[in-house]
Amino acid sequence: MSSSYKAPLDDMRFALFDVLGAEDAFQRLGFTDATRDILDAVLEEGARFCETVLAPLNAVGDTHGCTLDKDTGAVTTPPGFKEAYAQYAEGGWAGLVSPVEFGGQGLPHAAGVPMKEMIDAANLSWGNFPLLSHGATEALLQHGEDWQKQAFLLPLVEGRWTGTMCLTEPHCGTDLGLLKTRAEPQADGSYHLTGTKIFITAGEHDMTENIVHLVLARLPDAPAGSKGISLFVVPKFKVGRDGAMGDANAVRCGSLEHKMGIHGSATCVINFDGAEGYLVGQPHKGLMGMFTMMNTARLAVGLQGLGLSDRALQNALRYSRERLQMRAAGGPVCPDKPADPIIVHPDVRRMLLTCKALVEGGRVMGYHGALLVDEAHHGADAAARQRADDFLGFMTPIVKACLTEWGIECTYHALQCFGGHGYIAEHGMEQLARDARITTLYEGTTGIQALDLMGRKVMQLQGAGLKVILGEIAAFCEAHAGDATLAPFLAPLVAKAGEWQQLTMAIGKRATANPDEVGAAAYDYLMYSGYVALAYWWARSVAAAQASDRPQAFKDDKRDTATFYFARILPRTLAHAAAIESGIGGLPVLPLE
Amino acid sequence: MSSSYKAPLDDMRFALFDVLGAEDAFQRLGFTDATRDILDAVLEEGARFCETVLAPLNAVGDTHGCTLDKDTGAVTTPPGFKEAYAQYAEGGWAGLVSPVEFGGQGLPHAAGVPMKEMIDAANLSWGNFPLLSHGATEALLQHGEDWQKQAFLLPLVEGRWTGTMCLTEPHCGTDLGLLKTRAEPQADGSYHLTGTKIFITAGEHDMTENIVHLVLARLPDAPAGSKGISLFVVPKFKVGRDGAMGDANAVRCGSLEHKMGIHGSATCVINFDGAEGYLVGQPHKGLMGMFTMMNTARLAVGLQGLGLSDRALQNALRYSRERLQMRAAGGPVCPDKPADPIIVHPDVRRMLLTCKALVEGGRVMGYHGALLVDEAHHGADAAARQRADDFLGFMTPIVKACLTEWGIECTYHALQCFGGHGYIAEHGMEQLARDARITTLYEGTTGIQALDLMGRKVMQLQGAGLKVILGEIAAFCEAHAGDATLAPFLAPLVAKAGEWQQLTMAIGKRATANPDEVGAAAYDYLMYSGYVALAYWWARSVAAAQASDRPQAFKDDKRDTATFYFARILPRTLAHAAAIESGIGGLPVLPLE
Repeated sequence: MSSSYKAPLDDMRFALFDVLGAEDAFQRLGFTDATRDILDAVLEEGARFCETVLAPLNAVGDTHGCTLDKDTGAVTTPPGFKEAYAQYAEGGWAGLVSPVEFGGQGLPHAAGVPMKEMIDAANLSWGNFPLLSHGATEALLQHGEDWQKQAFLLPLVEGRWTGTMCLTEPHCGTDLGLLKTRAEPQADGSYHLTGTKIFITAGEHDMTENIVHLVLARLPDAPAGSKGISLFVVPKFKVGRDGAMGDANAVRCGSLEHKMGIHGSATCVINFDGAEGYLVGQPHKGLMGMFTMMNTARLAVGLQGLGLSDRALQNALRYSRERLQMRAAGGPVCPDKPADPIIVHPDVRRMLLTCKALVEGGRVMGYHGALLVDEAHHGADAAARQRADDFLGFMTPIVKACLTEWGIECTYHALQCFGGHGYIAEHGMEQLARDARITTLYEGTTGIQALDLMGRKVMQLQGAGLKVILGEIAAFCEAHAGDATLAPFLAPLVAKAGEWQQLTMAIGKRATANPDEVGAAAYDYLMYSGYVALAYWWARSVAAAQASDRPQAFKDDKRDTATFYFARILPRTLAHAAAIESGIGGLPVLPLE
Repeated sequence: MSSSYKAPLDDMRFALFDVLGAEDAFQRLGFTDATRDILDAVLEEGARFCETVLAPLNAVGDTHGCTLDKDTGAVTTPPGFKEAYAQYAEGGWAGLVSPVEFGGQGLPHAAGVPMKEMIDAANLSWGNFPLLSHGATEALLQHGEDWQKQAFLLPLVEGRWTGTMCLTEPHCGTDLGLLKTRAEPQADGSYHLTGTKIFITAGEHDMTENIVHLVLARLPDAPAGSKGISLFVVPKFKVGRDGAMGDANAVRCGSLEHKMGIHGSATCVINFDGAEGYLVGQPHKGLMGMFTMMNTARLAVGLQGLGLSDRALQNALRYSRERLQMRAAGGPVCPDKPADPIIVHPDVRRMLLTCKALVEGGRVMGYHGALLVDEAHHGADAAARQRADDFLGFMTPIVKACLTEWGIECTYHALQCFGGHGYIAEHGMEQLARDARITTLYEGTTGIQALDLMGRKVMQLQGAGLKVILGEIAAFCEAHAGDATLAPFLAPLVAKAGEWQQLTMAIGKRATANPDEVGAAAYDYLMYSGYVALAYWWARSVAAAQASDRPQAFKDDKRDTATFYFARILPRTLAHAAAIESGIGGLPVLPLE
């Protein structure tokens, strides 16, 4: 009895259409094909694939893992993974949100996020194989030469090839300025790359006929540090300018990492030994190109946290309804049974409702980030696009860090609902907890997201994105003033929004005196921001439920969960605010030795 | 390069002797042999054993796990475990705190806790084999007949046999009233036990010649529910009233659980098939006897959380000093290196200091609990013993739940300091996180500890233990009024103590109207209590450091860590207080289906 998964289509539709108004937004942004009918069909078909093909392979991937043939460097994926990928490619899922001109289906980015969430919830390890193709696709779309788009993009969008992002080296992860991989220019305009990359997700596998590595490396004349890094495309099998696949390139998987979780995902050491590649974009500007990819990858990792949280919650709910232990404090609820189901106990409800509030609120927050990607690219005018881009830049680290930290928390609570049984592999809960543990690490740790938010989005960009969300909150509260159902939520939301602004200004002021104040505040500021943003999304969810034609039980459920959120989760901001206010003075220096 | 461990002897001595005044206490309680010289020698020798024998086997146990021969039911422990146990028994460690009359060394309970912490930090899985012997020893000491003590206690204290606690069955864990294992009386005064027990730690292994199971079961005439449960001693090999070991008993390991962590620990399904056993204590009073065992077992599991936290912190500190990434915000700290060690970054300090504050403060809290065990047994008069027992009863769920929840948190932060490398098995950090995950589940989940605290220790016993600690805090603050070093800590401590009392009374009042208010408040009340108690222990630690003849750097370090604790951790009480105050109204009912 492994853990089960059912795609929460109703709540996905609620988040996307009722709360976020995506149907109108897609039309406004010019995605005329993205009608409600089309999107509903995509959701239904995606759910079927994830529930019936991917979910059953989740435990298989954990048990079997990937294996490396050390003689050939070939990686074999867990049983069934390759066949599932073939179905995925055949179904056109690889190109769901890619441009029609390169063979994609041209749907908006936000229309693809429910499918991403479903894939991650159904089988995170498997999902990491197609995931990285999106990053490679985007980098080539934005920075690639025309021939590169023709040669590499078409098979990526078709799903015949997959992509990777090769950044990290043994001595550098966050600090890419230290990287050593070298690219030597050749007479024919290509380059020979030499170096070792680590933690390369889907770096080698047996699912597709070729793999497209996007690699950061230094040209011989590169300036030191992060301003001397260029981006290259390096295929596993050589690809000519005509797109024809040739011989094996000098790219080899040196080893697979033994990890805490996501065993089905191939995390590779990749050795480049004079491998043939091509420059993508301008010399020495590779980091900028890579950051473009990283931003959408960060939103995607946030969805991984969300998906795992939801799957964990679903199973904890089921178990809490089945498991009979003790009687309710007020007397038997199920007198015909030997004991009451544990869902009647307030402390079990606390754990389940914590997950529910973070999952359903987090879903709106995550989908909203995706909608901002579409707005930033396709908004009506430059001002609208800039506004969306500011908002997106501000929310990206929050979405990534909060949804993954909450993923850790939700998989913790859900396992805890199982008691000792949660620790046993057969229930599948401990796999979810182990798999979730990667999400606050890769694509930038929570600490790195916090520095991006505080140092770049708040300090350097002067909180442009914060202003947007504060403006939205004010407008929302004004529009719903006098609404009796919303009243319990609006007053605390207004108060928190005001405090958010004040805290931001106070940090900014202190940071001019001591730059370490930024790092001292960063983590708590990020979490504080996440909780206030979630309060906004919960208030909007209550309003959207009221305004919808859904059953009263649905409306009550949203209101009750929001009540729980405001009463029991939002007060965490008090602790974060106090930590922020204590500043660098509360954070003594630790000795270097 | 697995994770390393060095016993923190200096801080252990500080907690036990400087903060808690254990040297005087032991003399006062009549342990005349427990002099500082003796205890120092025990610490040194224990550290040597744990660092050199147990710690190197930690990764071995994780990799190899235990194996079951399905034909014979025999369990083989990981390579080296058996030999390590032989050294442990030979060294007299099994009987360290057992009475001299049964072959023990007669040291006070609190003198044994640093050794427990070291064992758990060095190798939690291995430590679970001797751990359960203590519970069996205590149950027999307190409830066994004379011949049972002679027959079973002597080999347990000597370490020739180990013990288990057989409580849980497939359909009941927390709710032992549901248990089904039956005991049929025989003509010779023995019983035949039949039933299946699960999650039996050290239930079967190859370390000793016999295993003594303490088993809860029902007599034929037993009343239903928890008032019809009796306690039995059931050895793996039959034992006569003369202590002679006979044939194999009808006790068999049916399977080993596949767990998230503690792979080296044998978690067994144990089948009793008419197994010969003897009644321990009065019929139908077995649960009371088992609860005695469980209380010390709960304190011991708290120490497991502490030990893992400390090991995780030690490794995170080392890595944060070695790993070079980025420059400090204020300019290079190590300009001769390619980048600064990450320990200079405020957010890394935040994670390390969180662990440090919880580990060092938690050590005082955990050791204090052990000292209360000695006071409760050996206090000068009935009033002193009652006071200690009240205090102990109140602190036991707090120590168990908080030290293990903090164990989850500290192993999380420590892994996070490693970035992606923390997720890779070779660094050993992910094993610590997986191993720690069991500690908030077994011996009663955090939710169960919270109900014990709130329902029994606060409501039923009218907060007798709370009054003791509030009295201690008041006396401490009064005694140190005017002390400039302590001033920053005393005012918030007094305020929190007052709030603690008020919150307690408010819950009590609400609970008279609705019994579910107890469960609604329980978890947050427990965590709130833990953080306020830790504030007290940190204030006392600062005072003890000042009063000691230790170097100024040590005194500064304690003061700085306390500053961090009060500035950044204690404010979590704000969130918990708000959750408590929101009551059952913020915790909507979830549907049963």
